[in-house]
Formats: sequence, structure tokens, C-alpha cells
Amino acid sequence: MKPIFKASNPISRDDVLAWDLKDPLAGMRDRFALPENTIYLDGNSLGALPKATAQRVSRVVKQEWGEDLIRSWNKHDWMGLPQRCGAKIAGLIGAAAHEVVVADSTSINLFKLLAAALRLRPDRRVILSDTGNFPTDLYVAQGLIELLDKGHELRLVAPGEISEAINEDVAVVMLTQTDYRSGRIHNMAEITAGAHGAGALMLWDLAHSAGAFPVDLRGCGVDFAVGCGYKYLNGGPGAPAFLFVAEDLQKEVRPPLSGWMGHEAPFLFDPDYRPAEGIARNLCGTPAILSLSALDEGLDVMRDAGMAAIRHKSVQMTDLFIALVDQNCADFGFRLLSPRDPELRGSQIAFSHEQGYPIMAALIDRGVIGDFRAPDILRFGFAPLYLRFADVWDAVDILREIMTRKSWDQPQFHKRMAVT
Amino acid sequence: MKPIFKASNPISRDDVLAWDLKDPLAGMRDRFALPENTIYLDGNSLGALPKATAQRVSRVVKQEWGEDLIRSWNKHDWMGLPQRCGAKIAGLIGAAAHEVVVADSTSINLFKLLAAALRLRPDRRVILSDTGNFPTDLYVAQGLIELLDKGHELRLVAPGEISEAINEDVAVVMLTQTDYRSGRIHNMAEITAGAHGAGALMLWDLAHSAGAFPVDLRGCGVDFAVGCGYKYLNGGPGAPAFLFVAEDLQKEVRPPLSGWMGHEAPFLFDPDYRPAEGIARNLCGTPAILSLSALDEGLDVMRDAGMAAIRHKSVQMTDLFIALVDQNCADFGFRLLSPRDPELRGSQIAFSHEQGYPIMAALIDRGVIGDFRAPDILRFGFAPLYLRFADVWDAVDILREIMTRKSWDQPQFHKRMAVT
Repeated sequence: MKPIFKASNPISRDDVLAWDLKDPLAGMRDRFALPENTIYLDGNSLGALPKATAQRVSRVVKQEWGEDLIRSWNKHDWMGLPQRCGAKIAGLIGAAAHEVVVADSTSINLFKLLAAALRLRPDRRVILSDTGNFPTDLYVAQGLIELLDKGHELRLVAPGEISEAINEDVAVVMLTQTDYRSGRIHNMAEITAGAHGAGALMLWDLAHSAGAFPVDLRGCGVDFAVGCGYKYLNGGPGAPAFLFVAEDLQKEVRPPLSGWMGHEAPFLFDPDYRPAEGIARNLCGTPAILSLSALDEGLDVMRDAGMAAIRHKSVQMTDLFIALVDQNCADFGFRLLSPRDPELRGSQIAFSHEQGYPIMAALIDRGVIGDFRAPDILRFGFAPLYLRFADVWDAVDILREIMTRKSWDQPQFHKRMAVT
Repeated sequence: MKPIFKASNPISRDDVLAWDLKDPLAGMRDRFALPENTIYLDGNSLGALPKATAQRVSRVVKQEWGEDLIRSWNKHDWMGLPQRCGAKIAGLIGAAAHEVVVADSTSINLFKLLAAALRLRPDRRVILSDTGNFPTDLYVAQGLIELLDKGHELRLVAPGEISEAINEDVAVVMLTQTDYRSGRIHNMAEITAGAHGAGALMLWDLAHSAGAFPVDLRGCGVDFAVGCGYKYLNGGPGAPAFLFVAEDLQKEVRPPLSGWMGHEAPFLFDPDYRPAEGIARNLCGTPAILSLSALDEGLDVMRDAGMAAIRHKSVQMTDLFIALVDQNCADFGFRLLSPRDPELRGSQIAFSHEQGYPIMAALIDRGVIGDFRAPDILRFGFAPLYLRFADVWDAVDILREIMTRKSWDQPQFHKRMAVT
């Protein structure tokens, strides 16, 4: 660990309290509604509620829907919300405003762009991905291949073997940049260049990336990307997702999910589909305005903080967490799954432990909310906008207590239930 | 017109005030938040806000998201919301609870089921629909055909010629039951039987049907259906849509949009897609919980009223509207596009008029909110839960005034903008 702030050896709680005092993002915490007595280390799964979002949603429900009713499509420009929201996300991921739009779910957006990519490489049959990809990405590819029934293949290799597996059979390389368990980051620039070198297209899933650290889609020459609104973007449960299509490809994309919101002129009610110019053609049905408005509002918090400051604090927090587990929990059998080098990881840290499930259940019972991922992974996300360094200290201290007292070994913590 | 209540000849405002006093649904109006000085005849495009929905959304945002955060997937059973919500809709459309699920948009659900239908009829190449279908339905079919690239054809015939056009080339008949302009209803039982007689599958779009009048999917032996949450179901702007798959077909459907929420065990993170049992396999990505919760709450209002009572009042209202236009606006050049026989129409009435656009703009300016559909159609929806007979009277009276004084012929009413 290279602490950016000064620390004693061993690191003390007073050290991290001093860090909080100097934290330039400390004031952002007040913009979130957070439960009492909780250290929320699951903002990578569902981001916390920005206070302004509660007000915005209430206004959208009572004023825009309740009072202005159908007129709101024009009066409050609900029609333009997918693009306005997309433009805000563009600023976080190194895209131009007109290259991003918010629509549907990550899975569905992936389907759209994967289908578009295969159509742009009609002579190639391979979708290349890695075995560590988030399963829904693989499912979507499997479903598309089965639907097309043209002999396409989803080829999976180990995450470290992607670059050497790219060849001229590959139509599109489809990867999630940040491993959903370990937080390991793929090298976007290098892999994208490798894909292009072999004539393949590149599609990145930015779940666990967007809002976690600066992404540079244009700088890396990426063709397509999708991402999630409800993690680091704090858009609320099941918030709509986004998609990115590089400017020079936008005209070439024929949307497979060709709905009226992606039509050149939705309200002409023309019986023939003609895709809209630009990114809008990737819209399909009517957008879920309540959920979309919540996302739109949350993005302003992110913009005000700035991705550089967020990343800076994120690295400090994840470094601190690893250092404190090393220091205070060394004898309990945790194995770090995340890279030690912060350059190689996102804003989350994973440990494996054979008793991972009951340990996470015991942590949650004590108010430290992380999550469990099969088979044995404890996952902790660090959202710099609303977490304090003292929270990191306290979380590890509670973990130490649980391990020292073996308080995880109680029947109620072993009872499995769906953990999302 | 056959007034179910007594009326003088000509019908007077006192007559309809008396009807309101006897209306068994009169009390439902108080369950909606409605703007002052507005007669809202566009509930078929965006249903009004149930008061309980505003409270529910606020609770979901502040308590479930803000306080309980990620735990709400279990604690408030967000996981089960698409099915619970689907079960409520099932009761309105003659389906079994386990045959309906809420997901995505109508367009996307149509894509799923259309793709499933084509796969179930691999030797047939025709999707049969009518020229009056809502354009997005046609766009979705066009997009799917282009994607599959297997020589499928979208065959369109006039709405009245569907039955005779069904033959053994047809894989699936895809129709919107209620014409989005005129409100004309297709005979679901007869056309479905015709499709089955020729070995084709039947897919109904229930936009403008669900919540407008009783639908009997099981009684008619329908295979597939989709529908919209934001019209008569009062689910809010862009509310998630629903889909229906008949019980005996559920196992045969291979979802083309195969996301993790439709997996047999989403949280096993298995790299191979295995569809869930039953209707759940038609889910794809993470559901938009805020929008979904709003829909869920609105459905309770509908259930409390009962579809039979809703239909009864709907017929009275649409009959009254036609009779009053006949009586008070006979000389102004309106042409009724909706069937006069209430058995043949839904809960909306359309007139064409060569000055349709400025007339509707003038009506809206006076607080009578209907909508305009190209090229020359004035469309009025009647939502019996929150409209009074006196509203129908007053709307026609305002129309009469506008026509008598030619007050539609002002520059601001001719200026075109997007009308949704």
C-alpha cells in the first residue's frame, strides 16, 4: 500500500479520522440519504439514494404525471430524457454527448449492439469473451446465437488470454471491463486495439466501471459499449441502462429491436420502419419515465464531484481496506482476489473464504453491508461519494471482531437465501 | 344510442348530472389526483395518477431504496414484483396468474413472443397483421425479419380481411385487438380460432384493451399476448409492459432475449443459460423497480372497481359522447371513425376533421385533453374510473363553442409540435 495521506504503522483509527477531515469529497456525503448504523459497502450493486432524487421523483409523480399528464412529453421534455441522460453519462465515460443514450436494461442493450456487430461482420462467426464475464452477458450472446441459427460461436477464454485469442474468425470481442467479483480491470486500450488489428469490433460492458473510475471510450477507439444505471451512477433499483455507439458507426447500425421511439418520426405513424438519425435509433419502446428521471437526477451528483476526484478517493479507500485486512485480519484465512495494484482494479475488493457466506451474513447483521458471490466470495464496494475513511476502518474492525469471536458460526447465518 | 339511464330529448346537462349521482363507480374518482379545470380524455394514452401511487413511490424511494438498500430485493421482494404485478393483470385479461409477467416495454415483449412464435413454426414464413396495426408492432416485426434473414414476410391486409387471409403459410397472426385510432375491436375468439384452424399461432397486443374492457385470453385460447401498463392500467409514464404466454406453450418458448432474470437460478452465476420454469423465463434484465412499483399500486384501483363495472360505464360514456356530438355538433363536419355499436369498440372515440389539428389544440387550450393522430384524427379516451358523465357533457359543449366561434382558427393552434 502507498497511502496518499500519512499513516502510522500500524494504521490507527485516528489516522483515518484525520484523512476524513482533509477529504475534498467529504461534503458529498450530505447529498445522500443513508440509513443509520450502517456501513454500506454495496454501492457497486445498488448505489445509495441522492436526496435530490427523492425530491425529483416526487415532483415527476405529482406535478409532471399527476398535474400535467400527457402534456409532459413536451412540456417537461420526457421525449428528450433518454438523450439528455445519455449526454450526462457520456461525460463520465469519455464519449461525446451524442454517442450515448439511456434505454432498457444492460442485457437488452447488449443484445442490440451484439446483433449490430454481427451484422457488420457477416463473414465472421465468433463472439469472443472471457470465462469471468458476468453471466447475463454470456446468456444474451447464447440467446442471440440460438435465435440467428447461423452457426455463430461464443468462444470463451480465460481473462488473461483474450489478446492472444483475437483472430480473424472473431466478429466481435465482448468483455466486461471490470470483473464483477474481483474488480480486476481489463486494459481497454490494448484489447480494443488488438480487436481492431484483427478486423473485429469491440463491445465493452461498463457495469462496475461507469462512475467507478474514468473510462475513455473515444480515446481507446471503442466501437460499442453498454452499462448499468443502478450501481455507481446511483440511478435507483433497476434504473435504465445506457448504450454507446461510436459516431462513425451510428449510421451503419440497423437496430434489431426496432421500436417506435427509435423511428425517424415516431408520431407520423408510418407503417415502415426508418431508423432515426444518430444514437436515437437504438431506442425501442416508451421509456420508463419515473426510473429514468431518478437516474437523471443522480447523475448530477456524480458530475459535481468529478470522476478524477472520485477515482483518487476510491484508490485510497480500496488500498486502505486491503491494508487494514492485512493488518487486523491476517490470521483468519481470507484470500485477496482483487489485484493489489490499484491501477488494475476498480472500486471494489473481493476476498474468498471458505465460510464466506456466513461471514457476510454476520457482517450484514452488524450493519456492514457487502455481498456474497458464489461460491465463496465476499465482495465489498467503495463508493467515494458517500463513504468515509472511518467507515472503512470500522468495517474491518467489525470483521475482525466477527472472526475473533467466531460469531459467524451461528445457525441463522448459515441459512441460504437469494442474495442479490 | 341506447342510454342505460333515462335522458330527455335532447339530452340535457341535468340528465347527465343525475347519471353521475347514480354512478356506482363515482367514488373511484376520489382515488385519483387530477388537475383542476381539466377534462382528461387521454387516459388511453397516459392514465391518471392514483393517489396511493404517489405514496407508494415515495415509500419505495425513501424507505425501500434509501433505508433498506440492497436488502430490499429480499425484504420487500423486489425479485417477485414482476410476477406479482403480472398476476394482478392476469385477473383483468382472463389469464391465469402464472401466465402473465411484467417486463420491459410492449415493443420488446412483442419481439420476444414474435421470435418465439416463429421458432415454433419453423416451416412457415409469414407474419400476418393488418394495415391498421400500431406502427411499432409492424416495426418490431420488420426488425425481427431483417435480423433473422430467413425470408420471412410481414403480410399486411385490411383489418376486415384478416380471417380470410389466414392460411397455411402463416406462422403467427399478430394483431392489436383495439385500433389505436378508432377503438374498433377485432373479434378475438373468431380470429384466434381461425389462426389455430390453419395451424398458426395467435399473438394479441392488448394496448387500448387491457383495463378498458374485459378480455378473455384463456376463453379464446390465445397463445401469446402483450400489453401496455401506462394506458388504462394507470401505471405511470412509460410504465413497464406485460406479456402473456399460454400455460401449455410456456415450456416450448426459448427466450431470444435471454437475460439473467429469466435464468433458472440467477444467483448461481452459471455461465450457461438455462431458462427458468414457467413465465419467468421471459424476463431479461433487472426490472425498473420504481416504475414497476407504480404500476403495481395502480392495478389495485382497477381490481377494486372490477372490469364488468368499468366496461358498463365505459359503454355509457362513449355512447353519450357520440350522442352529444350528434346532437350539438352535427353541422361542423366531424366524421365518426369509431363503430356506433359499442360491442365493436373499446373505450375511445375518434372523429376525423380536416381541421383536426387546430381543433384539438383549441380543446387542449380550454382544458379538454384529447389527442391528435395523423393525418386528421381527434381521439378521445374515456376512463370510467375518474371521469364523470358531466365531464362528457362539458367536453362536447366546449367543442361546440370552439366550432361555433371558430376559435380553433388562431395561429397558435396551427403550429405543429410533437403530440404524443
